Parts: sequence; structure tokens; C-alpha cells
Amino acid sequence: MNRGSVDVPVALLGYGTVGSAVHRLLDESADEIERATGHRLRVVRALVRDVARERVHAPSDEVLTDDFAAIRDDPDIALVAEVMGGLEPTGSYVLELLRRGVPVVTANKQLVARSGPELFAVAAESGVQLRFEASVCAAIPVIKLLRESLVVTNVHRVLGIVNGTTNFILGEMEAGRGYAEALAEAQRLGYAEADPTEDVSGLDAAAKMAILATVAFGSRVPLDWIEVAGIDTVRDEHVAAARALEMRVKLVGEAVLVDERVGVRVCPAFVDSRHPLAAVEGAFNAVMLHGDAIREITLEGPGAGGLETASAVIADMVSVLGTAGTGFLHDDPVWRSLEPLAPGEVPSPYYLRLEVEDRAGVLARLAQQLADEGVSVARLVQQPGDGHAVLHVVTHEAPAGRVQAALDAIRALPECRGEASALPVVSSRGVEELGWA
Amino acid sequence: MNRGSVDVPVALLGYGTVGSAVHRLLDESADEIERATGHRLRVVRALVRDVARERVHAPSDEVLTDDFAAIRDDPDIALVAEVMGGLEPTGSYVLELLRRGVPVVTANKQLVARSGPELFAVAAESGVQLRFEASVCAAIPVIKLLRESLVVTNVHRVLGIVNGTTNFILGEMEAGRGYAEALAEAQRLGYAEADPTEDVSGLDAAAKMAILATVAFGSRVPLDWIEVAGIDTVRDEHVAAARALEMRVKLVGEAVLVDERVGVRVCPAFVDSRHPLAAVEGAFNAVMLHGDAIREITLEGPGAGGLETASAVIADMVSVLGTAGTGFLHDDPVWRSLEPLAPGEVPSPYYLRLEVEDRAGVLARLAQQLADEGVSVARLVQQPGDGHAVLHVVTHEAPAGRVQAALDAIRALPECRGEASALPVVSSRGVEELGWA
Repeated sequence: MNRGSVDVPVALLGYGTVGSAVHRLLDESADEIERATGHRLRVVRALVRDVARERVHAPSDEVLTDDFAAIRDDPDIALVAEVMGGLEPTGSYVLELLRRGVPVVTANKQLVARSGPELFAVAAESGVQLRFEASVCAAIPVIKLLRESLVVTNVHRVLGIVNGTTNFILGEMEAGRGYAEALAEAQRLGYAEADPTEDVSGLDAAAKMAILATVAFGSRVPLDWIEVAGIDTVRDEHVAAARALEMRVKLVGEAVLVDERVGVRVCPAFVDSRHPLAAVEGAFNAVMLHGDAIREITLEGPGAGGLETASAVIADMVSVLGTAGTGFLHDDPVWRSLEPLAPGEVPSPYYLRLEVEDRAGVLARLAQQLADEGVSVARLVQQPGDGHAVLHVVTHEAPAGRVQAALDAIRALPECRGEASALPVVSSRGVEELGWA
Repeated sequence: MNRGSVDVPVALLGYGTVGSAVHRLLDESADEIERATGHRLRVVRALVRDVARERVHAPSDEVLTDDFAAIRDDPDIALVAEVMGGLEPTGSYVLELLRRGVPVVTANKQLVARSGPELFAVAAESGVQLRFEASVCAAIPVIKLLRESLVVTNVHRVLGIVNGTTNFILGEMEAGRGYAEALAEAQRLGYAEADPTEDVSGLDAAAKMAILATVAFGSRVPLDWIEVAGIDTVRDEHVAAARALEMRVKLVGEAVLVDERVGVRVCPAFVDSRHPLAAVEGAFNAVMLHGDAIREITLEGPGAGGLETASAVIADMVSVLGTAGTGFLHDDPVWRSLEPLAPGEVPSPYYLRLEVEDRAGVLARLAQQLADEGVSVARLVQQPGDGHAVLHVVTHEAPAGRVQAALDAIRALPECRGEASALPVVSSRGVEELGWA
């Protein structure tokens, strides 16, 4: 059936790395897009701060504008892609467009993590779509999967390596570099910002996990529900112990649904080398979804990059056109209101590293502290350290809070020397099957 | 916006494991589906051979029918899911439905691999969709990704572990079992059929690669273009050599676009342990897509199973409804006609295992045979064997045909003892970076 080509005028908010890549890919791939959708997308307006500045993929003069009203008030514009970033005025612009019935595609992680539910509600009221694939892990189409492929599967757990910078740094530490040196290398390669706080603190990963959890569970997950620890606490000894246990240290985001309550955390974890997330190298990202009908599906790919992000923005634009008027995904994805798990309630096996005086009775006292908190030991290796003993403990599944309480009690023991640390273990196998090399 | 619920009568062709799971999931998840699509899907007819037989998820008497005409001629049926399998009469049924303007979702790998392009053309002519996610790797949504998310990315290479049975068997061989024992275990666990030929010969994987290549490259890829080797040639020595090279033996499907020509092959390969495909354990599947704008995206998950397949069928049903009337994916996905690469033209690095007499001059003669075919050695390890020398060679990238020609020449040398074998190497790193433990 030949429908004839339908010209679709679109606008961009922002024309930086991502915006210009969106424009170029739309131009270069106009035929492919028409084949898939029956439409030709044409960028007719792009909002910029300074119209006079030179651009990479230079649009004609009439395309660039520094006046948002020129986009908002143009009745021909069928679709807007927000690639300018920031919270304001971006959020107000998106809101105004949705209110006027213009579908919006956004790549804005902070905006969706903080104001997503408000924006979703306005979009649903206006009967238009707000899509946001590029706001999480760039070209990895995890939002599309959650919303379109896994409709009937009740996703109850999302595990992710969603920050490429920290994954690169941890990989360099495995290769023998110290934390500071690895960070400097990440900065040299452009993976880390001059101020790396957002990445290494886990805050960037937390924003992405907030979006993933909100979509997966259909309930608002505010940023302040998320327990966050960064990689700045990871030491060489952790990397070495992980290797001995045939695991790798990764910054893992985890969102779980337990008894209709939501728990989300981001922290360094020991990942079993046979787990799909262990294979994520360099600055790549991966997300694993656990659901009833699908068991688990893992997606892996580049989690950042201008072209990759632009590709996701365009996929969303194409999908908005491809579902227009059908009612598909027009309802608010936040359809219920779940409560959070109490702090420390997310359960998992743990790796504990303890340094203690090497004399009779110490082991018994440690074991008692763990037992007092209901934390059960699956595996214990004692090694001679520098004038003391180092204990590597892998526990069975226990709530984070109980493990922390046991750790606090152990730290208070007079026999405890040096630091005592605990990292969750991520494994598809039972902890008793893990090795020690 | 409240559109009110729209009742959508659907029919199933077939009511076995997958069909009954589709019915049950549609019933159980009616609310979720309505939230996503605005529609309630209701199974009104299911074609079976024997209406009187007892069923697991028993439909009411008026639903079951042994008369295809009762489905074909019912104007209320908005959508049909084909889950009966087989080539005929299935293919004729699907064709008739498409011709009458009824969209069809199919889980039928053999049908799509053999007759996909004819069916796609009829669907496009009739202005309806034919979706087939479940025909490849069950719940892993690789077809949706290729067609909807990667519209602008020019996918030029697809690498896959698309047969769970062989992946399980190779994993067991790594754990020390012989081929026969591993196969028996796969049969005991229900991963392998009593007659395992389709799986172990690589033919099952070839059908899936034909579908993936057809969709990825937009051109028909007939089964007889595909060079297929099974895992029955994999010996314990290969598994051991792979381990020494920090690789794993996997049955890999590869489809490449080189100079606008298509090459597809399925064969056992050495996969670098740092490559995403190396992490695929047990009966799981994974597909890696290489494209311009996305670099590479890997999807991993269960490649088989009744519930997993049913989940993919329903995702397709939901997507058909969600894009109806928009023109999205209504064009023929086979939009061009590419030629195949000549046999043996697909290039890759290779692992060669050669057994030769251990005396002066032999190495020089072997090296000469490789050089004569333009095959360049990246790495060579010689080990004493049982009265002879075993050579492990890793080559730089070379066309399969040239490697094969060199191998034939080496086999013809009087110094060659025992078997000489060659397996392609899959690695994201350069072969010179690979280790030998």
C-alpha cells in the first residue's frame, strides 16, 4: 500500500552535540525513516541561545531561533525534541508544549528523574506522548523494552551498570592502576568531567535508576529514596579480593519490588564473573531486567556519546509518529503509588572484609556479632595480613541494614584493626557455589 | 485522556504450550495491556486439531475450533497469532489472513526463514502488519530493536549465540564432560530433542540468522546462502586450547554486510572471554548488533521456553494495535535485493590447531603454506604432543576460503599428523592482545 510521503515538521530545543547530530541523522536517514514510518521528518526550527554562533551541521538561517515562542506558537510543528539539558527553563518549555498538545522527546536525565511524573501526567491529560529513551543509557533501548515488549511480564527487579565513567575507572583499577590514576586516565580520555563528583559519587547512576524504577514499577521513585554510595570508597584490596572470588567490582544500581514496596540503591558491588553484568567492559553500560514471563533479559551497549544519544532521540521521534492516535502509551506510565522499603531493607548476599587481631577467640566473637544480626556466613577465608589477620567473608542473603549493624558492632570490638567494609554480592549462582582462587 | 476500553477480539492458530500461555497471559494481564494500549484483547477463537482433547488453560467450548474458516471468515477478529508451527497448512493460513487484511503475529521460525519475504510482500500490499519477534530467540526483542530503535543506524553486522541447546552442551564440555555425555545431559534436562540434529548441526541457528540478516539488511537472505557447521566437530582439545587462550568455544552465527553484499555463517568459534558473547551461559541466547550510530548493542536472555515465547507473541500483538493505521512498519522490510558474498569470503581471525612431526623445517613449511594464501600469523604456540608437536596458531583477519585453502595444503603435507582444524576467532580486541595462559 502506498500512502505517499507525509512531510512532518519538527523542532529541536537545543543545538549542541546531540541536537546537531539529530539534525544530521534525520537528513541522512530520511529515506530509512520514510520506509519505516511513511513520513519525512524535517527540522524547521531549533532553539539556541546565540543564533550568530557557528555550528557543526549548520542549519539554514531561518531554522535557528533564540525565541521559544517561535516554536511554541508554530501550529505546523508536529513534534519537538528537547536536547538542551538543564532543569529550567527546559522543564517549563516541555510543560508548555505538552499542554498545547505537542508530543515531546527528551534526552534530559535530570529533568525526567526529578519532574518525570508531573510531565507524564500533563502529557496523558493532553493526549500526547512524552518519550525519554535517551535520558537513560543513550542508545540502549531499555525504556522502549520496559514499556512495549514487557507489558505482560511484571518486571520486579532492575540491575544496572548505568555509569560508564565509573565502570571504566574500576576496569583500570583491575588492570593495576590506583583510583587516582584511573580517574586521571578517564579524564584524559574524556570519559570523566574535570569535576567527576556526579559520576564517582553515584549520583548520575542514581538519577538513571530513579527513571528505570519509575517506569519498571509504574510508580514514582523520587531521588531521595535511593541509597547511594560511590566508588571513592573502593580500595585496591577490594579489587584483589573480588578477583580471588572470581568476581569483579562494579558500581551497580539495583531496583527491586518486594511486597509491593520499592527499594533502590546504587553502590559498589562484587559481581560474579559468570553474571552477565560482569562482562561489561570500559565505558559501556548494561541493564538486566527480571520479570515473570521472561526470567531475565540483559541489554548492553554504549551508555553515552552524541551519536548514540541522537540515535535514541530519533528512535523515540519515529515511535511517536508510529503510534500517533492509537492510544498506545498515551496513558500515564505512573499508574500507582507504591511506598519505599525502609532504609537497609534491600536484601542480598554480602562480601565483608575485616582486619582483626590474630589470636584465639576473635573469630568466635566476629561470628557471634554476625549471628546476632541474623547474618549467616556462606564462606570464610582467613589470610595473614600486616601484623594481623584479614578475613574475607561471603554471607548468605541478608538485609543491608542488618549487615551494616553487624559491621558497626564488629568495628567497635577492641580486636578490630583497620577498616571493615561490606559490599553486596551480585550473582545468579548460590554464594556457596562461588570459588576462591 | 480517557478513551474508554475498546474490546479487541483476537484468534490463535494453535493451542499448545505457547498458545495456551498466550491465552493465559492475555487474561491475567488484561489490565496491564489496557493501560498500555487502551484495548482489552480477548481470545474468541483458537484453531486446534482435536477440539475434544483436554487443555491446560481450558478455553470455553465456543473458543476452540478445528475449522480455519471459522477464523478466516469472522469479520470481528482484529488480529491473529500463529503459534501452531510447521510450514503447511500454516503458511497458507497466514497468507490468506494477510490477503484479507488481518494482521498476523507469528512465532514460526521455519516459516519466516523460508517464506518470510513472500509473506512480508503480501502484508505490505494488504496494508497490514506481519510481526515475528517470537520466531527468533523467544523473549529477546531483537526484531523490534532492529525495526524500531535502529532505524537510522545502518546495522552492518549481527553476531549471535542463537541456539541454547548447543551453548549448554559447550558449557558442559568446558566443565569437563565429553560431547556425548554433555548431549545426554541436555536431553535429560529437556534442552535437546531426542533427535538433536537440528540443533547440533547448526541448522536451527541458521534459520534464525537468516531471519536476523533479512531484517537487519533489508534484503532476502535464503537459507542456502548460509555456510553452516555444527558443534559435532568440536573436540575436547579445542575447548582446552580456547581456555588457554582465555577464550570460550561457542556456536556463533555471523551476518555481515561487506560492500553491499551479504555473508552469513554459523560455526563453532573461539570467543574472547572479554567479548560480550563469551558471558552467555547455559541455554541462554544473545545477539550483538553493530551499527554506525550505536557502535554495538548486545541483548541477552532466554532464547526458548513457552512463557518467554508467549511474552514475545503478546508484545507483538500489543505493538500491532499500538501502531495500527499510522503507516508504521507497514512497508515491506525487504526493500532491496543484495547479492551474497562468494563462499569463503567472510573474513575473521582464525585459530588453527595442527599436529605435525616434530623435526626441523616443518614449521617453515607450514608457515609458507599460510603465507602462500595470504594468511598472516599473529601468535603461535608449540606444545609437545603424543610423539609429535601440536601447533596452536592465531591468525590475523583472513577470508574463510583462504584459511581453508591453507589448511587443505597443510593437511596434504607428509609431515602433517592427525587432524588439522580451523575455527574463527571472535574478539573485540586485536588478536595480538590475546593471552596464552
